[in-house]
Amino acid sequence: MQTFTIAIHGGAGTILRSDMTPELEQEYLAALDCALAAGYAVLEQKGSAIDAVTAATVVLEDHILFNAGRGSVFTKQGRHEMDAALMDGSTLGAGAVTNIRNLRNPILLASRVMRDTQHVFLSGDGAMEFAREQKLPFEADDYFFSQTRYEQWQSVCHTDRVLIDHTNEYKDEFPDKKFGTVGAVACDLHGNIAAATSTGGMTNKQWGRIGDSPIIGAGTYANNATCAISCTGHGELFIKAVAAYDVSCLIEYRGLSLQEAMQVVVHEKLVRIGGEGGMIGVDAQGNHALLFNSEGMYRGVQNSAGLKETGIYK
Amino acid sequence: MQTFTIAIHGGAGTILRSDMTPELEQEYLAALDCALAAGYAVLEQKGSAIDAVTAATVVLEDHILFNAGRGSVFTKQGRHEMDAALMDGSTLGAGAVTNIRNLRNPILLASRVMRDTQHVFLSGDGAMEFAREQKLPFEADDYFFSQTRYEQWQSVCHTDRVLIDHTNEYKDEFPDKKFGTVGAVACDLHGNIAAATSTGGMTNKQWGRIGDSPIIGAGTYANNATCAISCTGHGELFIKAVAAYDVSCLIEYRGLSLQEAMQVVVHEKLVRIGGEGGMIGVDAQGNHALLFNSEGMYRGVQNSAGLKETGIYK
Repeated sequence: MQTFTIAIHGGAGTILRSDMTPELEQEYLAALDCALAAGYAVLEQKGSAIDAVTAATVVLEDHILFNAGRGSVFTKQGRHEMDAALMDGSTLGAGAVTNIRNLRNPILLASRVMRDTQHVFLSGDGAMEFAREQKLPFEADDYFFSQTRYEQWQSVCHTDRVLIDHTNEYKDEFPDKKFGTVGAVACDLHGNIAAATSTGGMTNKQWGRIGDSPIIGAGTYANNATCAISCTGHGELFIKAVAAYDVSCLIEYRGLSLQEAMQVVVHEKLVRIGGEGGMIGVDAQGNHALLFNSEGMYRGVQNSAGLKETGIYK
Repeated sequence: MQTFTIAIHGGAGTILRSDMTPELEQEYLAALDCALAAGYAVLEQKGSAIDAVTAATVVLEDHILFNAGRGSVFTKQGRHEMDAALMDGSTLGAGAVTNIRNLRNPILLASRVMRDTQHVFLSGDGAMEFAREQKLPFEADDYFFSQTRYEQWQSVCHTDRVLIDHTNEYKDEFPDKKFGTVGAVACDLHGNIAAATSTGGMTNKQWGRIGDSPIIGAGTYANNATCAISCTGHGELFIKAVAAYDVSCLIEYRGLSLQEAMQVVVHEKLVRIGGEGGMIGVDAQGNHALLFNSEGMYRGVQNSAGLKETGIYK
């Protein structure tokens, strides 16, 4: 019988137990539980993997704790500019958006790009025009405001520094790196798989910087024949590594298992170029893996074989 | 002794001898010669592969015949929005830009992104702000005007159709598809390789559409260990296929030669998903391949073993 599985992440980085209060830890775990439940409910009701990853990602985007949708970090100009992508492994259909402002759920726009256009990747004002045509909900700036993010931005907004960290206070040389990005991967009861990723990017980013999240092959990839992958990490290095598709190629061309292929990419190839972060993956048999080379990764997995767990640290 | 090589392309598609005048054909071949000469001169003077591909791409961007830089097509809004990327296979350094307006040479901006920022991919107004800080030359709209492109745009600007064709008149169902994009790959006398790609995208494109050209892994990729690749084709499908990096993986993980790996991607994997177009590639031994699954591809190659040729048709 086909195992169906959902896995999610809420970002990776230097997440230390010593920096966390029990209350905040509970808040994170409860949010992860909630996203898992939303995705798993879709699979349990015989829904598709692509709908399950979309549902889980919407919950993470709507939560103020995660750097995506509502909880997005501030750019150099004090705005929120969001990216998202998703891919359906059963069709290779894909949708991605970048430099999106004030849209409640960037992942829903990526989904419309996949379903309702002949394109894969839309950006900026043009993508927002398409979102308005699709009548997707927009929110005022204050919806995206959080005191923590504002203070992070204030600490660096008069410099050219960017923070790849999404919750800790600014420290020189970034000893605390957190890559705030959310994502989900799923395998449904038909053995179809899908991946979704959404992010607010780096605090104080400028020049319309785009990271790996919305790039098919880098931060997001799905193909029933191999795997569905969603990444979180230092975007520039995940782009150079073409990290998500590299896992797929190791499975397709080297015959590695999902776990083995992710191991090579996360703990060997990314480490070699200084690419800190992690990724989650599933294959069409419902196997899953959640790997990271950083101190921690907000994560969770649930499957029809009875497994259900969430975690933060190593 | 190390062979040094440069290869270039000026787009692929349904390029038929019957649609071409002898004069226009000579103009294309002369322009390709000129770009080859610019790139080869860098290599002959012991310059780097990354400088050679940049020099060749600048010549193609400056030529009105090619859909990149000066000859870029019109968007739905009657503007020119350009994308470019390059990657240095000796360092995995990469730079890419998208939605760039009025900049004379988008490939030079991609080069500044690679050399002078901690980022890989910049977009839109932010990227143009960075270009101004870098004092790169901008041009007025009329610099980018060509009568042919204007008429192409006028034929579809009141519809939602896009033209993936860059010179032929509009015909229903796009029987003549031309993918106007330019690019170059090179191997220098140190065995370092690099790739560059630049494009004006699709006529009548809207919503800030991004194709494969500026996406590392899809339209552009370089790694001394495997290959340097620049693609031209139906961008959305090259994105889904992660076409450039797929060639690299077939070399790395399957042990195929450059020619064999490109053969698999261009004539099997892309064809299977309807991905019309082509690509050029070199490896660190100075081998080259120029493959396309369409009717033609504007192309040229020159190496230190005495080869020098340009071509258009099959």
